[in-house]
Amino acid sequence: MRHLLGTAGLNTADAVALLDTADELKHTLLGMQLRKLPTLRGRTVVTMFYENSTRTRASFEIAGKWMSADVVNVSASGSSVAKGESLRDTAETLAATGADGVIVRHGSSGAAHRIAEWLDERGTAVVNAGDGAHEHPTQALLDAVTLRERLGSISGRRVAIVGDILHSRVARSNAHLLHALGAEVVFVGPPTLLPVNAAGLPAEVSHDLDAELPDVDAVMMLRVQAERMHGAFLPSQREYSVSYGLDQRRLGMLPQHAVVMHPGPMLRGVEIAPAVADAGASVITEQVRNGVHLRMAVLYHLLAGGDDD
Amino acid sequence: MRHLLGTAGLNTADAVALLDTADELKHTLLGMQLRKLPTLRGRTVVTMFYENSTRTRASFEIAGKWMSADVVNVSASGSSVAKGESLRDTAETLAATGADGVIVRHGSSGAAHRIAEWLDERGTAVVNAGDGAHEHPTQALLDAVTLRERLGSISGRRVAIVGDILHSRVARSNAHLLHALGAEVVFVGPPTLLPVNAAGLPAEVSHDLDAELPDVDAVMMLRVQAERMHGAFLPSQREYSVSYGLDQRRLGMLPQHAVVMHPGPMLRGVEIAPAVADAGASVITEQVRNGVHLRMAVLYHLLAGGDDD
Amino acid sequence: MRHLLGTAGLNTADAVALLDTADELKHTLLGMQLRKLPTLRGRTVVTMFYENSTRTRASFEIAGKWMSADVVNVSASGSSVAKGESLRDTAETLAATGADGVIVRHGSSGAAHRIAEWLDERGTAVVNAGDGAHEHPTQALLDAVTLRERLGSISGRRVAIVGDILHSRVARSNAHLLHALGAEVVFVGPPTLLPVNAAGLPAEVSHDLDAELPDVDAVMMLRVQAERMHGAFLPSQREYSVSYGLDQRRLGMLPQHAVVMHPGPMLRGVEIAPAVADAGASVITEQVRNGVHLRMAVLYHLLAGGDDD
Repeated sequence: MRHLLGTAGLNTADAVALLDTADELKHTLLGMQLRKLPTLRGRTVVTMFYENSTRTRASFEIAGKWMSADVVNVSASGSSVAKGESLRDTAETLAATGADGVIVRHGSSGAAHRIAEWLDERGTAVVNAGDGAHEHPTQALLDAVTLRERLGSISGRRVAIVGDILHSRVARSNAHLLHALGAEVVFVGPPTLLPVNAAGLPAEVSHDLDAELPDVDAVMMLRVQAERMHGAFLPSQREYSVSYGLDQRRLGMLPQHAVVMHPGPMLRGVEIAPAVADAGASVITEQVRNGVHLRMAVLYHLLAGGDDD
Repeated sequence: MRHLLGTAGLNTADAVALLDTADELKHTLLGMQLRKLPTLRGRTVVTMFYENSTRTRASFEIAGKWMSADVVNVSASGSSVAKGESLRDTAETLAATGADGVIVRHGSSGAAHRIAEWLDERGTAVVNAGDGAHEHPTQALLDAVTLRERLGSISGRRVAIVGDILHSRVARSNAHLLHALGAEVVFVGPPTLLPVNAAGLPAEVSHDLDAELPDVDAVMMLRVQAERMHGAFLPSQREYSVSYGLDQRRLGMLPQHAVVMHPGPMLRGVEIAPAVADAGASVITEQVRNGVHLRMAVLYHLLAGGDDD
Repeated sequence: MRHLLGTAGLNTADAVALLDTADELKHTLLGMQLRKLPTLRGRTVVTMFYENSTRTRASFEIAGKWMSADVVNVSASGSSVAKGESLRDTAETLAATGADGVIVRHGSSGAAHRIAEWLDERGTAVVNAGDGAHEHPTQALLDAVTLRERLGSISGRRVAIVGDILHSRVARSNAHLLHALGAEVVFVGPPTLLPVNAAGLPAEVSHDLDAELPDVDAVMMLRVQAERMHGAFLPSQREYSVSYGLDQRRLGMLPQHAVVMHPGPMLRGVEIAPAVADAGASVITEQVRNGVHLRMAVLYHLLAGGDDD
């Protein structure tokens, strides 16, 4: 594995290795007085975020720093982008400046793949931290770490992903990874927010959340973007909450052992009721916590090892 | 002490301990070839600034780095805030991402207190770096370090705080702390910028700067916000400077030993004359310098010690 | 050398020492498993950028971190500047906060020199990272590192600098440095973008790119700012490219050994054809790579050595 661009192209053995390393790192850190490993000392990680993100950027930055990497943040504002430089030249410049790994978030689907093609011969590793409506592989992997931790196994489980599937890179990355790990996925949402034939993804499709809840081991709620809340996609926020929001009544319909997930940021009261977000079945905080360990595992697999620069 | 939210609730012994530690750190660093202590190695500090600030954010960041902490900066632009996430979820996410301490600046009074309530059970320490017109405790503490250093003692001293008291968190935090340390405080300003009955703060009130100057050991000039310079609060900037600006004439009215302070950023020529800001009586640069040591002391008291995460 | 403000005032021996140190650092790092030197441990570098820049800021940040310095970034947005503080007070505050070195980029010519005057007595070193249309000395020095590496020597060489000379700090800094190192410089561009009499710089002036190409050892293409592309300065982007763009035909007119340079960010298809930017003669990526080593050399010469704070 030289880059992490998506879960679609990800070898299952590589995926399992990442989950295992994340688990190991979690337990190593729990046993330490101080959270600092020397693993990536002398390695340089550049985060290159063309879209806003607190949680993902901070999670990668902390993951790098806990392994003693040098981390440099570059954002689109304050960048050469405003001066008309091409994405390729910006990426190649950052690689030439000394980045061993580049973490990319970009509004266009496929941006991370293109950057990986360009930087591959330099030996710079590329991690996709979200590209358009395409993929967000570290989110799917941290979700899998959390599911495996709470349910014991992923194979044979059934997971509902609920909401705006059509525009969701989280839904896509999760569908690929969960399928590869032996789980069943069902996309649930209104017809206007579901891709036709699940867009070829390994998932079933349903418009009836209540019908699905009794049969799933996990329900993953997606944030509904404000800009989709009126007009062509949805009649109104209230109507959306009534049909697809996870409230107390619906929480009661889940099996006892099932867990509630959300990639964040949440809109409490819209796709998820406040009490449900904080319920015992919710693993939302654990997802965030595991995100750091999973990203440490990704950086470890891509950047540790011999000096190849 | 688990958080530092204000000087109002601050135990006097804790306050003195912070001042003493700041002094010790200052002398330790002066004796060192290199300014780097291993004290907070393996600890993670997140600055979470919802209002702009160069000096305070940089001061906390340097304080953390000189003690070998990992420091991660998060600002409101580029954050989940723009996506509608609640303050609570943002704070809890940053804590779950691994922050041992969160430094918060926010435009709303009480924001840091709320965050401390939410994060208390996680063992994450919260430092208020300025909340609305409420408190800015590290500013008051670094002012106290500077006063004690220059005057030898604080008890029995008299300090005038001059300007827009009504909207000033610096004035509030200083009034509480100076009172606790045994000093007298007098607020000086135009009636429109002074709270009625000093808002219950332990301070006298005066509208006549000239009458106060001969009797004080220190005069602390506050920045006058441009947006208050016309309309309801003040007749004009020029009129304000004539009545409440610290110029050479007024500098001459102070006792020989008295010091001039300003929390910055200064508007030279408005609340303070350029020559006064640079006069021998001015300790403004020393305030900035002591700010780093004081913030190191705060982080040390909150984050060093056993692993409680 | 206490500051690096421009190449105009730079002692030739100091310049050569910087180039030599950059070379040494490059070879030291190539031989290391991990790119981390302890050289500036305990030193604090503040980047203070009032203009956007990805590459220069990241290059300085990485240079500092690879030598174990603490690096703190401050930008104009999010700064006291917005609150009306003077440049002097902002700079003095950052110095008092503990900066051993301040890296300044500013839109006004002379800004770095003023800051160096103000901070000189504090022992804080100032590096000019670009001031208005005045100087950008680290760019010229990294260009010289690259030229010397590729051509074997600089003395006696002839370098064409092509484009908007009038507004270019890169052209000015290169003219001074190349002249000091014994090279000839010719400025090439349309009359509206060339200063009268080369503005007193040690350079010839030409309007005919084709006539110059066969006689030069290096051609340095400058970015043409979009805002100069119409109106008074230039008839049109297309006409500019025809007259002064470096395309395949013109690449063929250069001597075999000659190199193509660009300080970036490039506008491919405007001042330089994509194929030319990627041709074997192009050293553009090498310029970026050498930039980190040169900036390490600058920080080393200014900040290593005894504790003078």
